[in-house]
Amino acid sequence: MVDILHRVGIKSSVDAVYKALTTREGLAAWWTGNTQGDPGAGGALTFRFSVDGVEIGGFDMKVLELEPARSVLWQVVDGPAEWIGTRIRFDLQQSGEHAIVLFKHQGWKYPVEFMHHCSTKWAIYLMSLKSLVETGKGTPNPNDPHISGDGAD
Amino acid sequence: MVDILHRVGIKSSVDAVYKALTTREGLAAWWTGNTQGDPGAGGALTFRFSVDGVEIGGFDMKVLELEPARSVLWQVVDGPAEWIGTRIRFDLQQSGEHAIVLFKHQGWKYPVEFMHHCSTKWAIYLMSLKSLVETGKGTPNPNDPHISGDGAD
Repeated sequence: MVDILHRVGIKSSVDAVYKALTTREGLAAWWTGNTQGDPGAGGALTFRFSVDGVEIGGFDMKVLELEPARSVLWQVVDGPAEWIGTRIRFDLQQSGEHAIVLFKHQGWKYPVEFMHHCSTKWAIYLMSLKSLVETGKGTPNPNDPHISGDGAD
Repeated sequence: MVDILHRVGIKSSVDAVYKALTTREGLAAWWTGNTQGDPGAGGALTFRFSVDGVEIGGFDMKVLELEPARSVLWQVVDGPAEWIGTRIRFDLQQSGEHAIVLFKHQGWKYPVEFMHHCSTKWAIYLMSLKSLVETGKGTPNPNDPHISGDGAD
């Protein structure tokens, strides 16, 4: 099992970051505009992504655990084969003026090329989360930078 | 052992990317302006980073292997304790109009918080490499975005 790991410090309260991770409006403003479902504990979330106006796929998540202002844990229940069964975890901690976000996408079976891509892409989306919370404006899909060079995103 | 993995597609030839990874001028234009040493096979490279005009540290690397237009492998010989002995590898492959860069920072002993930070930061520097090669302008240190929230960078 291999994991994708990231960390960003966001000049804000942990509460503001937690809200961006646990509301449909928040998620839609940094990850993907096409976010649907229930971000509450036990809820089901669907995230869909588009490139040039064409939907290219996405992920269905179950919200496994929520600890207000502390942590968010999702399990992937549908999407690309490599993602199914993996878990995505955000741990929050206040450090002075900054909310520190420790991010983990855990449980990849193999370090495939697609995992490399997703690692880079997660970093970019976490910078979008940081921008959203600090400035009010993120760059969620379809306004995210394309990085793959193969039309995937 | 745990690894940091990333992937970017750069609209260019692999030769142009290889040049940005194996010349002092190239490295200084996407990773850190304070790049010194010999980027040739067997050479020693020093990379130093500054925040607000103050040097905060850096890394000394040995160039272990170079395969023109294919791969670059460095070993960290000095720097933060967690980095010493780790290896940084860039594998290049042409895919149509894009040079695909597979990046690995291999051999971390433990998935410490600092590793999470370095993973995010590598993604940002690889986007700087992409920007340099595609547009002629990267965002090397000290012009890189600060992401840590603790003054580290």
